[in-house]
Amino acid sequence: MKKESIAEKRARLLEAAKKSISDAYANEEHSVIQAINAYLELEKVKSTIYERLEEWYSIYFPELRINNQSTYAKFVIELGKNKKEASVEKLRGIVGEKAEDVMKKINESIGREPSEYEYETIRKLAEVLLSTIEMENSIEAYLQESTKKLMPNITYLVDYKIAAELLSKAGSLSRMATLPASTIQLLGAEKALFKHIKYGGKPPKYGVLFKLPAVSNAPKGMGGKIARMYAAKISIAAKADAFTKRFIADKLKEDLEKTISKNASQPKRSSGEKQKGKQKR
Amino acid sequence: MKKESIAEKRARLLEAAKKSISDAYANEEHSVIQAINAYLELEKVKSTIYERLEEWYSIYFPELRINNQSTYAKFVIELGKNKKEASVEKLRGIVGEKAEDVMKKINESIGREPSEYEYETIRKLAEVLLSTIEMENSIEAYLQESTKKLMPNITYLVDYKIAAELLSKAGSLSRMATLPASTIQLLGAEKALFKHIKYGGKPPKYGVLFKLPAVSNAPKGMGGKIARMYAAKISIAAKADAFTKRFIADKLKEDLEKTISKNASQPKRSSGEKQKGKQKR
Repeated sequence: MKKESIAEKRARLLEAAKKSISDAYANEEHSVIQAINAYLELEKVKSTIYERLEEWYSIYFPELRINNQSTYAKFVIELGKNKKEASVEKLRGIVGEKAEDVMKKINESIGREPSEYEYETIRKLAEVLLSTIEMENSIEAYLQESTKKLMPNITYLVDYKIAAELLSKAGSLSRMATLPASTIQLLGAEKALFKHIKYGGKPPKYGVLFKLPAVSNAPKGMGGKIARMYAAKISIAAKADAFTKRFIADKLKEDLEKTISKNASQPKRSSGEKQKGKQKR
Repeated sequence: MKKESIAEKRARLLEAAKKSISDAYANEEHSVIQAINAYLELEKVKSTIYERLEEWYSIYFPELRINNQSTYAKFVIELGKNKKEASVEKLRGIVGEKAEDVMKKINESIGREPSEYEYETIRKLAEVLLSTIEMENSIEAYLQESTKKLMPNITYLVDYKIAAELLSKAGSLSRMATLPASTIQLLGAEKALFKHIKYGGKPPKYGVLFKLPAVSNAPKGMGGKIARMYAAKISIAAKADAFTKRFIADKLKEDLEKTISKNASQPKRSSGEKQKGKQKR
């Protein structure tokens, strides 16, 4: 066999390196991570734009109160130019049953109408808000689909958004599968954890997992404990998702619910003490 | 005359109060303030979305480097689904003269193509970016028009965006007209000013006015001085805009340019000392 020249070797190795990067990125994990981060950012963007829109449009219609962001945007687009053109019928198509209330407010409003130029600008702002909302829905749909495919066990145990956020904090599914439950419990609480290590004070009890209703609505002193129970099961589910690819989450969830209901029925004091012991690890 | 009942009096006064609020808001100042704040927020929103889009799409095409945000978004929308479909012609319509370079990168790319679902989501993200950019342009056009009408003198002296930002920080045109030049110089530097008052250290030399090229590009030690000269003229211009409504900005600008060029030609040391004296006031 002909000996490989340095240039050939270089080309071959470069090709191999490219291929391995390409393979690593071929995994859908990466786009799930991008998607959940985009989603979390868009949530902030959405409220920034909505607050600005509401503040701005209240120059023209300070009496308007609509708690729904997309309804507010639609009102501005449809009737922002001249609110006096509104009719109860037309309003019903936008604000629903609040139509008569809004109609009354329009008739009594102290706001002036915007100029053509002002309206054009504010209408565009409302449109940006709508497209941000639409974008969010589309990311949600994508996440729902992709997490179910990528990590069926974890997604069965917790909400798909929480699953995606855990994945993003862990970095990859195979890394998450090797993390101990205590680390999974604190994913997303890194800042609080390092603050605790550096300056003392209370250690965090949960990070991303706080978004679980079972944790955030837990009775006092139980939140950390329930987060730990979830973390233990998530750790097992992650191993199944990453390696065996078997679906075991229904069994895990059943176990989890049993353990939680058993612990919740115990007297609070003892569970609090147990919790403390665990936190000190 | 029939004596007014309490209910009538209440109704009359309420009406009067409403009218005075309505009159106060009839002024276009308020919508200029909203517009400039929306503009400043949208700038941040735009870079958040762009950074996310670039990071995400680089899973599929890591070699792509386009420094223009809207061009990047257009590329994702047009060719994000399957970049292999690109031709030099098609690329020329999107990235212009970089077309051949990008074509070469496409052929050598190590990125995979996105799935249908992934593409849908990322395309929408690119569309949100485009509509944010469009929104910004529209606010810019509105600001350019309205500041010229509302405060022709100030806008002639400084850029229209800086004029609107000064207005927003001052709260209203009539308030700005009564502010001393030293306050106008520091509008937008409130945080640094109060830090200085509370903890000592260097006082700020400029706030919003730092955005003036004459200030940001000033020779060392001259920035604060030039900001003060501008502030003095802006203070006069604000009085003209708020009260006399006469156009005197051409005269003011001429004066300003003379003073600046006179001071810039002085030896640096003495101007530095003068500057210091001013800062301590």
